[in-house]
Amino acid sequence: MSTCESLTIWWDGGLWLIDQTLLPCKLLPIRIKNVRQLIDAIKLLRVRGAPALGAAGAYGVALAADLSRTSNAQEMMADLETAADMIKASRPTAVNLSWGVDRAISAAYLGETVEEIRQHALAEAEDIALEDIRINKLIGKNGAKLLDDGDCVLTHCNAGRLACVGWGTALGVVRSACAAGKQIHVYSCETRPLHQGSRLTAWELSSDKIPVTLICDSMSGSLMRKGMIDKVIVGADRITRDVVFNKIGTYSHAVLAKYHKIPFYVAAPLSTFDRQHEESDIIVEERDRDEICTLGGTRLAPQGIDVYNPAFDATPLELVSGLITEKGVFRPPLMPPI
Amino acid sequence: MSTCESLTIWWDGGLWLIDQTLLPCKLLPIRIKNVRQLIDAIKLLRVRGAPALGAAGAYGVALAADLSRTSNAQEMMADLETAADMIKASRPTAVNLSWGVDRAISAAYLGETVEEIRQHALAEAEDIALEDIRINKLIGKNGAKLLDDGDCVLTHCNAGRLACVGWGTALGVVRSACAAGKQIHVYSCETRPLHQGSRLTAWELSSDKIPVTLICDSMSGSLMRKGMIDKVIVGADRITRDVVFNKIGTYSHAVLAKYHKIPFYVAAPLSTFDRQHEESDIIVEERDRDEICTLGGTRLAPQGIDVYNPAFDATPLELVSGLITEKGVFRPPLMPPI
Repeated sequence: MSTCESLTIWWDGGLWLIDQTLLPCKLLPIRIKNVRQLIDAIKLLRVRGAPALGAAGAYGVALAADLSRTSNAQEMMADLETAADMIKASRPTAVNLSWGVDRAISAAYLGETVEEIRQHALAEAEDIALEDIRINKLIGKNGAKLLDDGDCVLTHCNAGRLACVGWGTALGVVRSACAAGKQIHVYSCETRPLHQGSRLTAWELSSDKIPVTLICDSMSGSLMRKGMIDKVIVGADRITRDVVFNKIGTYSHAVLAKYHKIPFYVAAPLSTFDRQHEESDIIVEERDRDEICTLGGTRLAPQGIDVYNPAFDATPLELVSGLITEKGVFRPPLMPPI
Repeated sequence: MSTCESLTIWWDGGLWLIDQTLLPCKLLPIRIKNVRQLIDAIKLLRVRGAPALGAAGAYGVALAADLSRTSNAQEMMADLETAADMIKASRPTAVNLSWGVDRAISAAYLGETVEEIRQHALAEAEDIALEDIRINKLIGKNGAKLLDDGDCVLTHCNAGRLACVGWGTALGVVRSACAAGKQIHVYSCETRPLHQGSRLTAWELSSDKIPVTLICDSMSGSLMRKGMIDKVIVGADRITRDVVFNKIGTYSHAVLAKYHKIPFYVAAPLSTFDRQHEESDIIVEERDRDEICTLGGTRLAPQGIDVYNPAFDATPLELVSGLITEKGVFRPPLMPPI
């Protein structure tokens, strides 16, 4: 795939991605020249979102193969394994990242020569990328049935095409509903501290002419009380046996939706499900204090103040009205077949 | 009163206040030279917080009297009435502002000469300011009994000494508990969009060596779920017969506290109560879209995006575990005597 028109990450003689930290001001594709740059891009959230990270992980392995100068297949696989471990460690909570890396590594092992290893790794990454769009369109189709014409949908963070290779999960559902002729209005929570809701969701929906209103995260309860929200749809970073890990703030919206008897949906591909683990097994990454204390050179809090900045929270499945996947909608305790 | 050491607004040969938009970077007293400047300071939130606005309203009338050049008492009262209307209109949701203005105007009417009018208006403003600190210490004393040694208290926005003339309401309760020897840890919600929690609450608590941890507004639910919060205490901008109007986001915390069976307290002086009205009578001011879309020159959302930015939300009294006032703690449906 070789266009940045509506793709978030792609291969075109090398690895490219949209630098999402520059949005909404600039839509800039950047060339990722080595694994270190990819890891930095993941850590700095130039590329983020569970499905996009799946593709990024696989492309990272392909990139490592592309750059490895050895002519020995075993040595190349050793290089790839090293790269794989480094990539996986860059955002440990997102299960798709490891999943994408592992798929590309498994594919690479099928190669007997360095050239075959390169081809297999890249082909697998391209497969994952294409598959991601196909899966998201299925998620969209399955989820669109849950939305009624005229619905106002609250979302948090960005589970849109910028979080995927294309189309999106939560926003893919909205997109599919709109494509089916329904009028949907999205309330996008800005999503502190990194503003994925205002920078990315508001940008991608308004680019697509889908009506969107930006609010602060803390306003969701008040809007629900006023009857302004019909449904909540979010994405997921990891769905264990008991909880949905997603961007910090998701749990608050879920409880508020429950209190106001508003359906709360999670849209995610099966690659986000992690049946091996439960909540207590997962360590949620804590991010830098400066994300909360400063913004673009403006100081928002006193120097040296104590800060708690977890990247994700956990929403128990009891609070989820439906898990929207490519295999259909599952109402917990029902879960999709593995 | 003539010190800025721990006062937010005071008279010292003229009207002074701490410019709160410059915190936490700079603690700068500014001289307010005329009523127009005061109105700008109120609109731009250089001075904010219900009790502080009560004093600001009264001092505004005193300032208008100080500046009026007429030697005719009737003409001066006409000047004062004009100033009063303009000041009251600058933040319509905050009931204390009107209350302070009206008290100073009533006092001014007792004067028979322009000099007496000036004296009465200023004396009343000074009374309100002194009374505010006395009342806040009573609120603190009454509320401190509700806090246990070792409690972790969540608060939203700034209901501290910066929201008052001194001491504070919600943070006054924390201060009084600490003064009584209890160890209290405060979790301060940053309070988007204007960051009163990170800029002001975090600043004033850490200045006073009270342990404080800064979080994003959306994190409150997750912290409650983890058992990290024992009590919630917030201030109020207006308490009608049915709801508490306070900074947007308060309602979400109240529902989350209810869900997690955590006591939710509102600390406010009787001047914040408005028995004449109920929720539907009150128009909540909507503030400028740019508060959400930009920050210190950094663009956070696409140009022209639709924004909803109400300044306050309404929390039904059923969600309030106790109203902490200078007359004691009242558990709704019980309300303080007028």
